[in-house]
Amino acid sequence: MSNPSLLILPGDGIGPEVMAEVRRIIDWFGDKRGLSFDVSEDLVGGAAYDAHGTPLHDDTMAKAQEVDAVLLGAVGGPKYDVLDFSVKPERGLLRLRKEMDLYSNLRPAQCFDALADFSSLKKDVVAGLDIMIVRELTSGVYFGEPRGIFEEGNERVGINTQRYTESEIDRVARSAFELAMRRGKKLCSMEKANVMESGILWREVVTEVAKDYPEVELSHMYADAGAMQLCRWPKQFDVIVTDNLFGDLLSDAAAMLTGSLGMLPSASLGAPMANGRPKALYEPVHGSAPDIAGQGKANPIACVLSFAMALRYSFDQGAEAERLEKAIEAVLASGVRTADLLGEEGVTPVTTSGMGDEILKAL
Amino acid sequence: MSNPSLLILPGDGIGPEVMAEVRRIIDWFGDKRGLSFDVSEDLVGGAAYDAHGTPLHDDTMAKAQEVDAVLLGAVGGPKYDVLDFSVKPERGLLRLRKEMDLYSNLRPAQCFDALADFSSLKKDVVAGLDIMIVRELTSGVYFGEPRGIFEEGNERVGINTQRYTESEIDRVARSAFELAMRRGKKLCSMEKANVMESGILWREVVTEVAKDYPEVELSHMYADAGAMQLCRWPKQFDVIVTDNLFGDLLSDAAAMLTGSLGMLPSASLGAPMANGRPKALYEPVHGSAPDIAGQGKANPIACVLSFAMALRYSFDQGAEAERLEKAIEAVLASGVRTADLLGEEGVTPVTTSGMGDEILKAL
Ligand SMILES: CC(C)[C@H](C(=O)O)[C@@H](O)C(=O)O
Ligand SMILES: CC(C)[C@H](C(=O)O)[C@@H](O)C(=O)O
Repeated sequence: MSNPSLLILPGDGIGPEVMAEVRRIIDWFGDKRGLSFDVSEDLVGGAAYDAHGTPLHDDTMAKAQEVDAVLLGAVGGPKYDVLDFSVKPERGLLRLRKEMDLYSNLRPAQCFDALADFSSLKKDVVAGLDIMIVRELTSGVYFGEPRGIFEEGNERVGINTQRYTESEIDRVARSAFELAMRRGKKLCSMEKANVMESGILWREVVTEVAKDYPEVELSHMYADAGAMQLCRWPKQFDVIVTDNLFGDLLSDAAAMLTGSLGMLPSASLGAPMANGRPKALYEPVHGSAPDIAGQGKANPIACVLSFAMALRYSFDQGAEAERLEKAIEAVLASGVRTADLLGEEGVTPVTTSGMGDEILKAL
Repeated sequence: MSNPSLLILPGDGIGPEVMAEVRRIIDWFGDKRGLSFDVSEDLVGGAAYDAHGTPLHDDTMAKAQEVDAVLLGAVGGPKYDVLDFSVKPERGLLRLRKEMDLYSNLRPAQCFDALADFSSLKKDVVAGLDIMIVRELTSGVYFGEPRGIFEEGNERVGINTQRYTESEIDRVARSAFELAMRRGKKLCSMEKANVMESGILWREVVTEVAKDYPEVELSHMYADAGAMQLCRWPKQFDVIVTDNLFGDLLSDAAAMLTGSLGMLPSASLGAPMANGRPKALYEPVHGSAPDIAGQGKANPIACVLSFAMALRYSFDQGAEAERLEKAIEAVLASGVRTADLLGEEGVTPVTTSGMGDEILKAL
């Protein structure tokens, strides 16, 4: 049997340097654990625009459709702010999500014990926090038509369309219920059903799907109240399911609350392929951080943990994923820190590749 | 000259009991400060539905258009969850906002010194916090057409439309710049211009308006990053301007961060009327809290401070508004607390009306 295939898209800003560390880890799993991958690498975002005049070349898109999993660094940077909307770096990422039909975006918000002090929240509010936000990723106002800037009378009007079909809601709800079954069996669905009809349909469909998961305790919350409750006492949640736009804001807020932003991975999953594996793209939650790119300051852990998620969700290697996660915990516990996490007494500062070294040692 | 007119709409849940305290304060200003108002009272939300089968009677709507300011308690409750969307309590509030054309919603997020410990955030992150979120309130996805749940093929689809014209963005941006001029001269505009064309137009128009306010330092942030930064270090902001839906989530998160949720008022302002006063509605940020309604547990301060905002923004009585705000600070400093703020050592618990007594004493 041939090796499973991985397409690596480092992207922009700190993407390439954090991805370089991930490649060393991938190699380690090949050498030491007999888990070899066919790795190819390509461009996305601003880097692809610079080379091809488009943030995602058709050939890259085709490759992404064929591989077992895609690993992405980050896209975007001020250099590309002047570009037309249609070729902005973000469009490359959005095209991948849409054409691979990666409808279920898993965003764990986890607080690493060693880092609880970095949170702006009180320690007891975040220590031990471990929640999962499931964000719908291929529909809603991100993709709905009509969209654009139009002339109307003597002025312009900007239009986007929030749009959800029953089946779109159904499938992401199912993936959230499945996750809840493997976790604390509590699911909270968030929308604005008090203001938006799309939210009414969302609530109805989620309630319907719940009948197939009688063990899961389902609740509903308006998204504004959800934002509040995340800030007040995030531990009340286990799994949260919400739409594309609410998920964007809520998962970012939740990630920041943990104080472990440079540590948080994400998985974007679609339907199973012929080989049974889901279409999948893995990426850190943090952005491309152009201000610190190329200085050895970036924290590669979120990207490494994204590979751990790939091991778990694409390659059924939960034990190997855990091995990697444990190694990272051990490194953090030993006081080794990249530049984003300095400030405490008695820690050992390392560069991006220094962190890679430490993780390899711990493995 | 006749007295200025006030329409009071207590609404549902704790609305009536907090408003009862506000009425005592209004009377005090009439008796002691020669500031008399022509006060009338009417129904909104579930209360109006119970009486008339609609969450806002046309007569009430007409009255609201005529008075100098509207003061609203809160709307909604589980009892009304089963109602059709078109007659839900929230529709009454949304109709007021829309038909009075109250496009500029001012939501201060302020941390009261005496209450900093109630925040889930670390004390140094919130102590002294004083930011103002200006939320567009009459357009965007709350009101855009088409909207509804439609049949499509063999399933249903829920649709809402995000829609902003240049002039809608222009006027709310101006109100935010005006506020920034009277405060710290810093304005941050939030949208998702990397994903939504309506956000691109938003950013363009705000940038254009900035030319008329060269003293104000303008920045732009994606709304997801904005949610993060509010959670991380809210004091980086002075005034924030954003659209209806983002404003809903961001202002609620910001309010919760202060730890002073039961304390936060809001003003919704429109264009000047013939007498020069803006169309205006004032309401607390908190909801109707049906679980504690009628038990004397509600904190009337947010609603009282909403009246203080009315004194300032509708009646040009900034000094009297300050008198009222100072009285409330003094009451809090003396350790008097309603049920939502118990938990510390050495405080004196009071009921809703007990808090009213204390504020009157301090005045
Ligand atoms: C980069 C951007 C298009 C993207 C989004 O809005 O989805 C990002 O914020 C994210 O959350 O992955
Ligand atoms: C009650 C509801 C319709 C309202 C809104 O969504 O605007 C509320 O959440 C608010 O922020 O005033």
